[in-house]
Amino acid sequence: MTAPVPAPRMSGDVISRLKAVLGEGGWSQDPAKLAPKLLEWRDRWTGTTPFLALPKTTEQVAAVVGVCFEAGVAITPQGGNTGLVGGQIPQGEILLSTERLNAIRDLDAFDDVIVAEAGVTLAEVHEAAAAQRRRFPLGLASEGSATVGGVISTNAGGTQVLRYGMARSLVLGLEAVLPTGEVWNGLKRLRKDNTGYDLKQLLIGAEGTLGVVTAAALKLYPQMASRAVAFIGVGSPEDAIRLLARAKEETGGDVEAFELMGRLGIEFALRNIAGTRDPLAERHPWYVLAEFASGEAGSAQSAMERFLASGLGDGLIRDAVVAQTEAQAKALWAIRENQSPAQKPEGATWKHDVSVPVSQVATFLDRATAAMLQIAPGARIAAFGHVGDGNIHYDVLRPDGGSDAEHSAKRDEGSRIVHDLVVSLGGSISAEHGLGAMKTAEALRYKSPVEVQAMRAIRLALDPKRIMNPRVLF
Amino acid sequence: MTAPVPAPRMSGDVISRLKAVLGEGGWSQDPAKLAPKLLEWRDRWTGTTPFLALPKTTEQVAAVVGVCFEAGVAITPQGGNTGLVGGQIPQGEILLSTERLNAIRDLDAFDDVIVAEAGVTLAEVHEAAAAQRRRFPLGLASEGSATVGGVISTNAGGTQVLRYGMARSLVLGLEAVLPTGEVWNGLKRLRKDNTGYDLKQLLIGAEGTLGVVTAAALKLYPQMASRAVAFIGVGSPEDAIRLLARAKEETGGDVEAFELMGRLGIEFALRNIAGTRDPLAERHPWYVLAEFASGEAGSAQSAMERFLASGLGDGLIRDAVVAQTEAQAKALWAIRENQSPAQKPEGATWKHDVSVPVSQVATFLDRATAAMLQIAPGARIAAFGHVGDGNIHYDVLRPDGGSDAEHSAKRDEGSRIVHDLVVSLGGSISAEHGLGAMKTAEALRYKSPVEVQAMRAIRLALDPKRIMNPRVLF
Repeated sequence: MTAPVPAPRMSGDVISRLKAVLGEGGWSQDPAKLAPKLLEWRDRWTGTTPFLALPKTTEQVAAVVGVCFEAGVAITPQGGNTGLVGGQIPQGEILLSTERLNAIRDLDAFDDVIVAEAGVTLAEVHEAAAAQRRRFPLGLASEGSATVGGVISTNAGGTQVLRYGMARSLVLGLEAVLPTGEVWNGLKRLRKDNTGYDLKQLLIGAEGTLGVVTAAALKLYPQMASRAVAFIGVGSPEDAIRLLARAKEETGGDVEAFELMGRLGIEFALRNIAGTRDPLAERHPWYVLAEFASGEAGSAQSAMERFLASGLGDGLIRDAVVAQTEAQAKALWAIRENQSPAQKPEGATWKHDVSVPVSQVATFLDRATAAMLQIAPGARIAAFGHVGDGNIHYDVLRPDGGSDAEHSAKRDEGSRIVHDLVVSLGGSISAEHGLGAMKTAEALRYKSPVEVQAMRAIRLALDPKRIMNPRVLF
Repeated sequence: MTAPVPAPRMSGDVISRLKAVLGEGGWSQDPAKLAPKLLEWRDRWTGTTPFLALPKTTEQVAAVVGVCFEAGVAITPQGGNTGLVGGQIPQGEILLSTERLNAIRDLDAFDDVIVAEAGVTLAEVHEAAAAQRRRFPLGLASEGSATVGGVISTNAGGTQVLRYGMARSLVLGLEAVLPTGEVWNGLKRLRKDNTGYDLKQLLIGAEGTLGVVTAAALKLYPQMASRAVAFIGVGSPEDAIRLLARAKEETGGDVEAFELMGRLGIEFALRNIAGTRDPLAERHPWYVLAEFASGEAGSAQSAMERFLASGLGDGLIRDAVVAQTEAQAKALWAIRENQSPAQKPEGATWKHDVSVPVSQVATFLDRATAAMLQIAPGARIAAFGHVGDGNIHYDVLRPDGGSDAEHSAKRDEGSRIVHDLVVSLGGSISAEHGLGAMKTAEALRYKSPVEVQAMRAIRLALDPKRIMNPRVLF
């Protein structure tokens, strides 16, 4: 059931045609310019490419893709190069960077929309929205580099999915160059449009395999008048999930974030991230970082007070602290955001970005940890994540003082067990990072043949020569 | 660019095979049983079919579709038969009704999900959710008959789209029988799953052309603790749109509905709907029905008070009344819901379900009305709709005392002008009803060849014999 991956056939003729359509400043073959785009930021993937295309306009993207389609030459599109699964790193393909597609074409506060080109960074979108008292509620640690095109092509998540959904739910319209080099203008800004298949939904999360997203119309939201952040000690993941259900009811859906962390992750942060302080006086087995927000002044705070009081009353909450200032809120969030960086000095890790139904989070954690300790006795489990979405970053670190090499050697075995368990609970082996070049083969183990066949048929229909990111997806 | 529509080839052999896979009670050829399923509820469409399939299980649906696929026989799927564009009425095709697929398979308050089969009605979903203090926020006038499968296949909208989105955004997972008769089990209940193309997004809104939806996992939401409904007199659509922007800011997104109505529609309701009373003492050119809801007790009311006070203060609001009881709220909503029924005694109408960017609503109304009065002097314009989504039901009634026949004869000319205008403003000729058999040809005028080709390629890839609802979509 493996799909054919064509060897990129490159010729001097193709390169000259590409140079001609891109013009001065529109391409590079300079190793110094290419190097940072060929290295994945965690240094896990290094790539090669004969040619970097730097189109400035949608028409130039179309011309590049058209030349490649005609010649049967493969392309890897790249946004901010912040992906974690190698989907943006070429292995001999033409590299098409969207960095020069960097215009914000429009922002309309009545339509609550911003129209941004693919290379605009998420941080720039946030800034433009804030200038009009609006908000684009998709936040990522990498938002200074991550781009609109990349965020859409990978259907990025982040910490506000619980309330606002993944990137998919924030897109009103798309403009894209299809694999044949034709421009599809689907850049509508409508909330309602039932006139055939919703093509943008196919491109969102397609990881660059169905075309190049060149611009998007993104939904904006009002800014919030009140916001409350609490750091909460709880006894177990089960208790955290009960609290989540209560928080959603208590606030009528105003829960912006509900993040779970194990004690070990807090200890890593205390030990390895300068300036971290334990927010609570005593130790607790698990922690929740909860954020509520409301359009009404004071409302988020009073909802948080009610929520904490009821949890402390019936023991679901062991202890809690509420941020009194913006700086305190930032410090609490920093503990969550440093969960991954704080692991680095601790040695080799098996990392997993998985999701299960929210009701299965506790079962998953119990069973996964029992299995991990069986194959890697003494392994240290740092689990954290967006429990409100059932999305757990489940990281298995080598035993304290153990051998990195020995631990790494068992990574595939361990990950297989985690993934088997996740799938048996109705979950996903890639919650928010995508499959890229890294997880495609693994995903094939779990997908039904019916689903894989349907995906391949669709891909073949839109990209008959399979030129778009051929090593990625099925 | 017209696509081939195969004549359904029926044979006694196919019918016997279908009877065999469906068994006793699983089919009908009884004209009395068929009749209500062959008549569209506004009496605009009448159909014919040689055979009504009434599968009870997904496996039976798969068997029926498999037999038809093999024989190249076309199928029209039907849910509650509430569609307005003829997509569910067969013209010689096998009719596949989902009415016996009527189980609610699961409801989980931790996952905030209900898993319902295609034939479950929307009202049954509401009831099941309410029993667990949850809410499925998609409401339609036809919710007592409209089914889960139909709502998903047409990506239905309704009055709560502003806050919760169309049906599309409420679906977590789908189970469907693909055109080849294979079952695709995508019945996940995950908030995050980035493992390839999101196939469910293709089936949502495909109007039965890519397979038969057999079950869905739908998102549930918490119930609201406070709710405020106001009926507001305004001077113009522009003012209504300014107020909408303010309402969204004021409430932080807690606007559940923001519905615009012209004075004429109010007069029709007063004249033709028994028991209707004008909620405001004086006449106003336009009206807004606004509903806010919040998880915090009292919060919606206080937001509504602030909103009305500021609008009355600066003149954007001319007068307003807030419902003090549930009965009053219902009476205000009844005026909105009766906008369409109230037109019936007034004679021939050209109806349009269109959307434009919110910022263009006023421009659309101005220009459309000028154009209509030019080709149909004295025509009465009743415009109303979900202004928060840019979705206007734009209805052009014959002049008072004029001839129905004369007015109807100009319908196509009038609709063409409305649709041309809508498209020139970046809008859609079918906001929430879909294209069905009625609007497909019209939509072809406006879609780019690139988009139509992409849709056809995808359809052909999944349904190589084009057996699924062949007269619908491209």
